[in-house]
Amino acid sequence: MIIDLETLRKTSVSALLNLTGPDHAAQQIDLLLDADLRGISSHGVLRLPRIAQRIRNGVTDPSQTGCHNWRGEGFLQVDGKRGLGPVVANAAIAALEDRVRRTGVAMAAITNSNHIGMLGYYCEAAALKGLSMIALSTSEALVHPWGGRRAMIGTNPVAIGLPVGGGEIFMMDTATGLVSMGEIHDHANRSVPIPEGWALDGEGRPTTDAEAAKSGAIAPFGGPKGYALGLAFELLVSSLADAAIGRDVTGTLDDDTICNKGDVFILADGPVADMRPYLDAIRSEMPAEGFDRVLIPGERGRASRKTRAAAGIDLPETLWGDIRNLAG
Amino acid sequence: MIIDLETLRKTSVSALLNLTGPDHAAQQIDLLLDADLRGISSHGVLRLPRIAQRIRNGVTDPSQTGCHNWRGEGFLQVDGKRGLGPVVANAAIAALEDRVRRTGVAMAAITNSNHIGMLGYYCEAAALKGLSMIALSTSEALVHPWGGRRAMIGTNPVAIGLPVGGGEIFMMDTATGLVSMGEIHDHANRSVPIPEGWALDGEGRPTTDAEAAKSGAIAPFGGPKGYALGLAFELLVSSLADAAIGRDVTGTLDDDTICNKGDVFILADGPVADMRPYLDAIRSEMPAEGFDRVLIPGERGRASRKTRAAAGIDLPETLWGDIRNLAG
Repeated sequence: MIIDLETLRKTSVSALLNLTGPDHAAQQIDLLLDADLRGISSHGVLRLPRIAQRIRNGVTDPSQTGCHNWRGEGFLQVDGKRGLGPVVANAAIAALEDRVRRTGVAMAAITNSNHIGMLGYYCEAAALKGLSMIALSTSEALVHPWGGRRAMIGTNPVAIGLPVGGGEIFMMDTATGLVSMGEIHDHANRSVPIPEGWALDGEGRPTTDAEAAKSGAIAPFGGPKGYALGLAFELLVSSLADAAIGRDVTGTLDDDTICNKGDVFILADGPVADMRPYLDAIRSEMPAEGFDRVLIPGERGRASRKTRAAAGIDLPETLWGDIRNLAG
Repeated sequence: MIIDLETLRKTSVSALLNLTGPDHAAQQIDLLLDADLRGISSHGVLRLPRIAQRIRNGVTDPSQTGCHNWRGEGFLQVDGKRGLGPVVANAAIAALEDRVRRTGVAMAAITNSNHIGMLGYYCEAAALKGLSMIALSTSEALVHPWGGRRAMIGTNPVAIGLPVGGGEIFMMDTATGLVSMGEIHDHANRSVPIPEGWALDGEGRPTTDAEAAKSGAIAPFGGPKGYALGLAFELLVSSLADAAIGRDVTGTLDDDTICNKGDVFILADGPVADMRPYLDAIRSEMPAEGFDRVLIPGERGRASRKTRAAAGIDLPETLWGDIRNLAG
C-alpha cells in the first residue's frame, strides 16, 4: 500500500519515541526513509522492527552518540558505545566536517556502533556541503573468497560522493558482493531460481536454488578483482576501526548480538572542478545495443526520491501494520 | 632471454644516466624492475624506451621532484612539473609519511606528473613502514561506460596496502577495466581472438576480434558496479588533483604529449591489528571445484619476485637490445 511520506515519517519516528529521544529517532528514521525514497527498500523502514527489538534487548543503546578520540589532528577514532548507527555516524561526520576545513583531509574509524544503512546517504550529504567523501563499512561474512567455498568476507560496501560544480553532486554506492542476501531471500520467497554465478550452497557448490543459497555464500562482484577489493576493505576497516573481522562479525542481521563491524569515513576539502560537461557527455552517449541510455550512478535513485516524495512510498501491508503497532 | 637482475638494473639505470642524475634514474628503474619481478611485464622495463623518448622530446623533465603546496595540514597538492612519475610520487609520499605521524591521515593529489607505474609498489612500501595506504590514478580513456559505446573513462586503478601484524603486509592492486589494453594488443599480436565481453570495436559493437578492439573500448570490470567505481575514481582524482578528465587525458601512452592525468594517495597511521590468523584461514579454505587453492591478492606477485630476483628476468631479445643501445 502507498503511504504518504510525512505520515510514514511521523509514524516511524513515533515507533522509536518510547525507546529514545526525538532527535535520535528522527536521525534513524531519516536514514531509513531516504533508502525507501530511492527504491532501496532493503535498507528502508523494513529494518525498523529489528532496530526497535535490538534496543529492547539491550544490544543497542539509542542514547549514545559515540565517544570521540582524536588519534591525530585528522584521525578520529570512535567507540560507538552501541549507539544507533546513523546517530554515531552523523556525530562523527559533523566532527570531521569541522576539522577538515583546517586539515584538508580527515578520517573517522568507528566500531561498536550499529548498522549505518545506505553509505551513499552520508556521502551525498557531504557532497552537498562541497566535500568529497569515501565511506567504507564491513558486515557479517556473506561473500566467499574467489575460488573458495564458504562466506569469509562481508558484503563490504563502498560509497563515494563529491561536488561536481554548480551545486550538483555525484554519488555512487555499491556492495562488493555480486548481489545482496536480500535479493537471494526475495528469490527464495517467490520460489524463483537465482542466476548461475550468484552464489554457492552450504557445501560450497554452485547453485541456482535460492533456498540453498540462503545458507551458502554470495559471489564477489567482478570475480578476482572484486574479491581483492572486498578483502582489502575488510582488512582496512577492521584494522583502522579496531573492529571484528570475517566470520567474527555479528550484529547487523539479528536482534540479540552486539554489533562489532567497522565503518571508515574519509572526507576531503578539495578544489571543486566543474565536471558537469563530462557527465553530460557520458549521459548523451549513444547507448550500446540492448540499452536505452547510459546512466550516471546515483541519478536513478535521486529521480525515484523526487517521485516517491510526492506520490508516497509503497510498503507491504504487514510492515505498515508492524510500524503502526510499534508506534502504539 | 634471461637477464640477471643486477645486470638489468645497472644497464637500465645507465640508459637514463645521460638524461638525468643517478638518484632519479634509480627511482624510475626500481619501479619498473619491481613490476618485471612480479611478472607484470606491461609495467616493467618494456616502458623504458618510451620514458627516455619522452625526456628527449621535452614532455618529461626528469630533474623535477614536484612543487608541494599544503592546502591544509594533511592535504598536499603537488604540481609534478612534468617530472618522472615515481620521482614525483616518492617525494610526495615522503612528505606524507612525515606528516601522517602527527595528523593520523594525510593525502596527496598530484597532477602534471608522468606515469607512476604499478600503484601497488607504493602501497607495499608504505605498509612495510606500518602505514595503511590507498592509491588511485587516472589514465587515458580506454573503458566504456556501462551501456555505452565509446571509451570515456580511464582504466583507473586502485591499490590498497596495509600492515597485517608481525611485519607482514597485505597489498592489492587492480584496474577498474576488465582487462588491460596491453592484453588486447597481446592477443592481436598473436592473432588470437579475445573472449566475449572484453571489449567493443570502434563502432561500439561487441567484438572478439582483438585487432578491432584496439581502436575500441574495454569493458568495465564487474559490469555496472565496476563502471560506477571507475567513474567515481575518475571524478574524485580529477577533482582533488585538478587534473584532466575523460577523453582529455593524454600522455601515458605516447612519446610527445604532456601527461595531465592525476594521482591521489591517502595514508593513515592507524592501529596495526594482527590479521594473519584471518588471512591464514582464507588461505587454508578448501578450494571450490576448478581451483587449486584460495589465493590472497598480492602473494603470487611476491613469490614471483623472490624467484625472479634469484633466477633473473625473461626479456624479449629486441627489448634487451633496445635497453643496451640506450645505455650506449
